[in-house]
Amino acid sequence: MSELTAKLASTSRVEMTQLVLPGYANSFGNAFGGRVMQWIDLAAAMAAMRHTRMPVVTASIDQLVFRAPLRVSQIAILRAQVNAVFGSSLEIEVTVEAEDPRSGDRKLCCDAFLTFVAMGADGKPSKAPLLLTETEDETRHAEEAAVRRAARIANKRQK
Amino acid sequence: MSELTAKLASTSRVEMTQLVLPGYANSFGNAFGGRVMQWIDLAAAMAAMRHTRMPVVTASIDQLVFRAPLRVSQIAILRAQVNAVFGSSLEIEVTVEAEDPRSGDRKLCCDAFLTFVAMGADGKPSKAPLLLTETEDETRHAEEAAVRRAARIANKRQK
Amino acid sequence: MSELTAKLASTSRVEMTQLVLPGYANSFGNAFGGRVMQWIDLAAAMAAMRHTRMPVVTASIDQLVFRAPLRVSQIAILRAQVNAVFGSSLEIEVTVEAEDPRSGDRKLCCDAFLTFVAMGADGKPSKAPLLLTETEDETRHAEEAAVRRAARIANKRQK
Amino acid sequence: MSELTAKLASTSRVEMTQLVLPGYANSFGNAFGGRVMQWIDLAAAMAAMRHTRMPVVTASIDQLVFRAPLRVSQIAILRAQVNAVFGSSLEIEVTVEAEDPRSGDRKLCCDAFLTFVAMGADGKPSKAPLLLTETEDETRHAEEAAVRRAARIANKRQK
Amino acid sequence: MSELTAKLASTSRVEMTQLVLPGYANSFGNAFGGRVMQWIDLAAAMAAMRHTRMPVVTASIDQLVFRAPLRVSQIAILRAQVNAVFGSSLEIEVTVEAEDPRSGDRKLCCDAFLTFVAMGADGKPSKAPLLLTETEDETRHAEEAAVRRAARIANKRQK
Amino acid sequence: MSELTAKLASTSRVEMTQLVLPGYANSFGNAFGGRVMQWIDLAAAMAAMRHTRMPVVTASIDQLVFRAPLRVSQIAILRAQVNAVFGSSLEIEVTVEAEDPRSGDRKLCCDAFLTFVAMGADGKPSKAPLLLTETEDETRHAEEAAVRRAARIANKRQK
Repeated sequence: MSELTAKLASTSRVEMTQLVLPGYANSFGNAFGGRVMQWIDLAAAMAAMRHTRMPVVTASIDQLVFRAPLRVSQIAILRAQVNAVFGSSLEIEVTVEAEDPRSGDRKLCCDAFLTFVAMGADGKPSKAPLLLTETEDETRHAEEAAVRRAARIANKRQK
Repeated sequence: MSELTAKLASTSRVEMTQLVLPGYANSFGNAFGGRVMQWIDLAAAMAAMRHTRMPVVTASIDQLVFRAPLRVSQIAILRAQVNAVFGSSLEIEVTVEAEDPRSGDRKLCCDAFLTFVAMGADGKPSKAPLLLTETEDETRHAEEAAVRRAARIANKRQK
Repeated sequence: MSELTAKLASTSRVEMTQLVLPGYANSFGNAFGGRVMQWIDLAAAMAAMRHTRMPVVTASIDQLVFRAPLRVSQIAILRAQVNAVFGSSLEIEVTVEAEDPRSGDRKLCCDAFLTFVAMGADGKPSKAPLLLTETEDETRHAEEAAVRRAARIANKRQK
Repeated sequence: MSELTAKLASTSRVEMTQLVLPGYANSFGNAFGGRVMQWIDLAAAMAAMRHTRMPVVTASIDQLVFRAPLRVSQIAILRAQVNAVFGSSLEIEVTVEAEDPRSGDRKLCCDAFLTFVAMGADGKPSKAPLLLTETEDETRHAEEAAVRRAARIANKRQK
Repeated sequence: MSELTAKLASTSRVEMTQLVLPGYANSFGNAFGGRVMQWIDLAAAMAAMRHTRMPVVTASIDQLVFRAPLRVSQIAILRAQVNAVFGSSLEIEVTVEAEDPRSGDRKLCCDAFLTFVAMGADGKPSKAPLLLTETEDETRHAEEAAVRRAARIANKRQK
Repeated sequence: MSELTAKLASTSRVEMTQLVLPGYANSFGNAFGGRVMQWIDLAAAMAAMRHTRMPVVTASIDQLVFRAPLRVSQIAILRAQVNAVFGSSLEIEVTVEAEDPRSGDRKLCCDAFLTFVAMGADGKPSKAPLLLTETEDETRHAEEAAVRRAARIANKRQK
């Protein structure tokens, strides 16, 4: 890409619906954490692909909190979108709601922030399109993402 | 349920996004038919659950046509909704689009009509809520569903 | 292939036996519709491969009816065979029986008609061998397949 | 069961057909050993269930030899049958052939002898029906199974 | 438990080895992030179970960083251990190394901190055994865990 | 390799820990035999890779005995190591212990002997490094492996 493009934050939005099958359950009858993480990673990857139109790889999970269990037979509704772009890195936010199959009530089960990296044809990180925010929410998300990123850089534990 | 309720067709809508992973591919690099069918069944089941708020089972696939292949790394976008209700039976329509990860172009890959049955607490078929259509499209879908159902009943091959 | 060959319908027959594992069950203790569809697609694909000796792809499910549930611990017996050939297209019929593990009783659970397409080395549809029927049953199946095909062509809904 | 029944060896026969999907392959393009073992265990379990009409568990693999690789896109044909019954134990023989999708040629890929145990309602081993052999092959298999069993008992390594 | 017990940090250690199969790969030939996350969750769960001897659930991923890709045919070596205990919560650290199958060289691919919660028989969080550290490394890990926890509590974004 | 190398038996050791998830269970609540076999094959393959640093394929399971069931929620601990090397063949021993999640008690569930073959760059069997034993146990294992191999060669049933 010779010139950097910019894209609306709303362009990246992904909605992914999953039925919580009995085979995904732990001994409490809830979806295993690892299964939900896998869905979150895929939803986030698709949001990153929609923004960048480039191959992407997961760089990190910066935070992922389970707030309520996802029970067997519930419908999991995952929503992913790009919060902010930093060069070749993108912060993606994913929320998971559980929809009760009987009442239709929905409840936030999990939210997560992940960082993905856009990859060039040479298999190396490559600049992603800039992000244009339209709503107050989108702007706030982008600002908070920048704060989280600054904190991560400051606190990085050397290995 | 002592009284029958009615619900808007739009209430049942489901959007399900799936990344076509390399492990789902046949030797042409396309998603296996059987994998796509499994997604279609799940998307349809969730639409039927959203309309009925009851447990549901698949009764039949009345038609499912592959119009273009779904390739590895593409994003599959499944959309399911209830077309019509006939007592305890529901016709569900599912479409599958393939989104090209680079260009964002979308193409219809597959559409399907399935019949689900709503199940009561006694494990027997139980009347589903009536369907209220609002748009011309929804009304047309309901009418076409009735024609398909009449044709199926007329043509039923005895076994 | 410079000349078209013809093959006996019986050559294409496939028998596929699957144990219904607990991990395949829905909340009723029955195999998920989508799982059974996946088995049906594979059994049909193998029948089409045995007739054509060419790569094949699923073109459509023309009808698939669940007549009785497949329960956990039952043995599913799938039988697939080519009913008729139309140029590069093949109609495949698949039946699924459930064998009770205790009594050995068998019951028809599902039957389906699918259309597959034979693919040439260029990735395009390619003529399949003609079908030779030997028994009355095979001839009747071929005739009924032709009727179903004519009906599908007549009723095709434009998209 | 108050009286022991006896059943024909042929009653237990199972044929299981599996398409070797790309997702089952190792880096040589062949089906992983572990995947084939899983199929063999299931085919053997179904043969044991057909003979005993009781729940069964795998007790041992007495021998399992890979004689040729199963390649991606080949059709695996598994055949299982009961060779002999020793109280609550059954020796099951399983063979796996690979069918070339283009030529239809078949080649023995794997054969195996497994021991299963029939389980009573109390979760303990329970006598299985006796085995009636009809053909010379069946009788020879039963005799060879008895020799293998005697050798295993003689050679048992204490743990 | 009428009295709180204490356990050595080393008791909780888990080593989990996974071969990176072709079916786990993305289009770069690397293991999908979501697959690795699932392994990490399981390794961490087992470490938490070894410390608590109680059922556990994943509460959060506090940080998970991919430092190098895990390639197909490599051996993934996951190591998990409890870093610190805070009432019913446990911080678990997991590292993932990639072992090159040819050279045997190992490289750190991923490290993660997760929080698990010990669950009582009533399905509610229940106090976990205290953690006894023996080595300097273990003590440092426990102290750093306390700093991370304090930071998380301070920075908690309200939802 | 122009010269044959030799390696310590301890170099090949693999420890693989697996949580027995509900989705792996048969109707008794125990892990399916076929699932455990798949784990055993992978653990053995990794031990063979660690010794040879070459690609390997499963040649046979020479014996695999289930001594006790692996129950859902238990932790399976697989240990694999090379017992002996015979040209391009390696005998691998794998044991599977079940760890009770509540008490921490461990019990031997399964042990197995498998033969793997080291593969050269030409896809043909290729000499594996010699095995150096250090402990009495390792030496005894190597001697017993040679006895088993001699017995197998003597008893080989022609096919």
